[in-house]
Amino acid sequence: MNYAAYLSRAAGTMQESAIRKMGAASARVPDVISFAPGYPAPETFPWEDFREITNELLGARDGTTLQYGPTRGFRPLLDAILGVLRSRGIETSLEELLVTTGSQQGLDLVARVLLDPGDVALVELPAYTGAITAFRNVQAELAGVRQEADGIDLEDLDRVVARLRGQGKRVRFLYVVPNFQNPTGLLLAREKRSRLLDAAHRHDILLVEDDPYGELYFTDVAAESDTRPIKADDRDGRVVYLSSFSKTLAPGYRVAWLVAPAALAAKFEVAKQAADICTGALDQRVVWQAIERGVLAAQGPRLRALYQQKRSVMERALRQHMGDVLTWPEPHGGIFIWVNAPPGLDSDALLARAMQHRVLFVVGSAFFVDGTGTNTLRLAFSAPSPERIDEGVRRLSAALHEALENRHQGFGSAASDSRGTGSAGTGGASIGTVTPIG
Amino acid sequence: MNYAAYLSRAAGTMQESAIRKMGAASARVPDVISFAPGYPAPETFPWEDFREITNELLGARDGTTLQYGPTRGFRPLLDAILGVLRSRGIETSLEELLVTTGSQQGLDLVARVLLDPGDVALVELPAYTGAITAFRNVQAELAGVRQEADGIDLEDLDRVVARLRGQGKRVRFLYVVPNFQNPTGLLLAREKRSRLLDAAHRHDILLVEDDPYGELYFTDVAAESDTRPIKADDRDGRVVYLSSFSKTLAPGYRVAWLVAPAALAAKFEVAKQAADICTGALDQRVVWQAIERGVLAAQGPRLRALYQQKRSVMERALRQHMGDVLTWPEPHGGIFIWVNAPPGLDSDALLARAMQHRVLFVVGSAFFVDGTGTNTLRLAFSAPSPERIDEGVRRLSAALHEALENRHQGFGSAASDSRGTGSAGTGGASIGTVTPIG
Repeated sequence: MNYAAYLSRAAGTMQESAIRKMGAASARVPDVISFAPGYPAPETFPWEDFREITNELLGARDGTTLQYGPTRGFRPLLDAILGVLRSRGIETSLEELLVTTGSQQGLDLVARVLLDPGDVALVELPAYTGAITAFRNVQAELAGVRQEADGIDLEDLDRVVARLRGQGKRVRFLYVVPNFQNPTGLLLAREKRSRLLDAAHRHDILLVEDDPYGELYFTDVAAESDTRPIKADDRDGRVVYLSSFSKTLAPGYRVAWLVAPAALAAKFEVAKQAADICTGALDQRVVWQAIERGVLAAQGPRLRALYQQKRSVMERALRQHMGDVLTWPEPHGGIFIWVNAPPGLDSDALLARAMQHRVLFVVGSAFFVDGTGTNTLRLAFSAPSPERIDEGVRRLSAALHEALENRHQGFGSAASDSRGTGSAGTGGASIGTVTPIG
Repeated sequence: MNYAAYLSRAAGTMQESAIRKMGAASARVPDVISFAPGYPAPETFPWEDFREITNELLGARDGTTLQYGPTRGFRPLLDAILGVLRSRGIETSLEELLVTTGSQQGLDLVARVLLDPGDVALVELPAYTGAITAFRNVQAELAGVRQEADGIDLEDLDRVVARLRGQGKRVRFLYVVPNFQNPTGLLLAREKRSRLLDAAHRHDILLVEDDPYGELYFTDVAAESDTRPIKADDRDGRVVYLSSFSKTLAPGYRVAWLVAPAALAAKFEVAKQAADICTGALDQRVVWQAIERGVLAAQGPRLRALYQQKRSVMERALRQHMGDVLTWPEPHGGIFIWVNAPPGLDSDALLARAMQHRVLFVVGSAFFVDGTGTNTLRLAFSAPSPERIDEGVRRLSAALHEALENRHQGFGSAASDSRGTGSAGTGGASIGTVTPIG
């Protein structure tokens, strides 16, 4: 049978995630060091707390613990999430809150509830592939907005919206990750956050704010106050806010949440009913108890210290081995370093060599909706140990220097332009795009 | 803000599930007996096994246990599911298999991968609301096919397809629940299963076979061989088969699966990547170990005996209190009794009275895509204890007799026509539709 004839138009264009593809590839390479997936460090999982909690929950034999539950979420967990949100400056209520099966489901619900085929979703250049795919899967058109060292370029936002509206397109929302963006690690400046709200109001678009990494700020270069969500100052109800326990507790529990104006939250709930009925009952109770017992609160300082250390290890190794050829914006938190290779160096070709050296990353072009970024790469430093990070960067360096030697054209001047700063350069410079497109 | 202006067309038409609505309502009524949700009996959950398994899994501190995992599913679980499928007569392979976050996600993936807006999905009259909603949410058109006492009416299927094709419509698949259908409890006859495959071939449509209840046959009226999936005899790869551990282990673990021709399975996997990345890692391992340790195998006889007993309690109570006014097809398995009230008795009005008597059910009209079935109701007997089933039916009887007294027109003849048989009547009669529409 020719199954292509049975596919929906959406399915016909669905593509495998570059990150997931790398995951599959890494499973086949022995002794590989992978900087590809944004996996949290398994040594941070609070195993003993989870074991105690689960033991007690299953021991109590309350039928609802393993039953179907409300689509909105387990009520005590919802209440606990309201507390988490309050600590981030977001005052909200149950009417605006929905538990999701990971934040990826939140993105999928956003796509389905807010986008018709042909509608435009704005995303950062570059942007998280999971969001790109969720929006593309409802046949939306994606348009990119440039980023600078301090986050999204607001003037470019104005230009992009004006251009698209001039073409008669329906621009529905802008998707942003203000805290330690995936893939760039960038932190959106505080003053830009309020200007972004103004811009959303002026252009009459919604903001979809994705905040999985906010608690992972590095205390040597950032403070908690730098991570205040845009949603905290959303007075006219224009922000859909997503966050998750995947990076703070563990992703194996698929528990995340979404905050939206009540009228939208109700629609997200109905969409979720048909998507998976409800998020796992036991998972929700484990997370609830982890909050109640202070496990989540204890994770914060631990995670920040660990990821800060791993970042330092990776940055040091990058500077040492490739500081003369690569640049990257210094991450102020999160789990990624976003690397710019010299113009003309193709990261797909580099990846092929890197695999021979048993090290993996995600090619940056996967995060660009405009076809650019072919000389960029995303390195996640969260999961490997410091020793493996160091070794992995050495391997990457060997691959990179091979690739450079094998290139036909030279690039001496480009390399010396970016020597060893390890930072994004001047504010206002485009991040990771060789030829930024407005 | 007027949020309606921001909604997609799909979201504009999304409606809350009647079953979920009843769940919310029941939470607000004290001492209510609910026959509404199809919840498995919590006393069947193997608590101690789950506790032991989870203890060991979390004690082993293998990072992958709480990490993101492959979208296809946890490999050892996939292998174990192949064994479960083999025991049902389905020989398949990893290329055709995908773990889903509950079967509801499977239905959602089916909708997204196989249906474009305006395409037709065929469903039984009546059909599971979760499937109806999943298909509607991609703006498909639904068309109903009548059921008889032994399952779907194949002549009606021919008529419906011919009519729709005559109207130039794209008919993509037929969704069927051959084993103890939700909501009717009907069992599709063996010989009809192969004729249905022939019909699918003849009409060039796919079959989406949903089989959550197959293991719940009642040994006093059915045998395992009666439940052989259509997929087991699917030689040309026309069947997408869904099943779940929700009714055999526990729904609180959101673990189900889907079998499809490899080309389709690959698309379902890509669609799932953007829907929730992966099903919960710990949940999958718990289910895997429950299979490995024989917990799942031990559940079968226990569940069959318990549900058979509960069915008997409910049928006896229905006959005793309302046998002169209600009819229902005798269920051969599963967890539902599908009740036909006298024509003209509106089950919405009955439900309002029933709530006053603190008993709940789902109005049958929710399961009909053709607007009929207003005098039908679905009673789930799985969750309440035998005593509560008995008491609940008494309450329902009080509500029903009030409703009958308050009706303006009499219906003496209709009542005596259907007196106390408790069965679906003659083969070929339409099930649960007052005025079956072809």
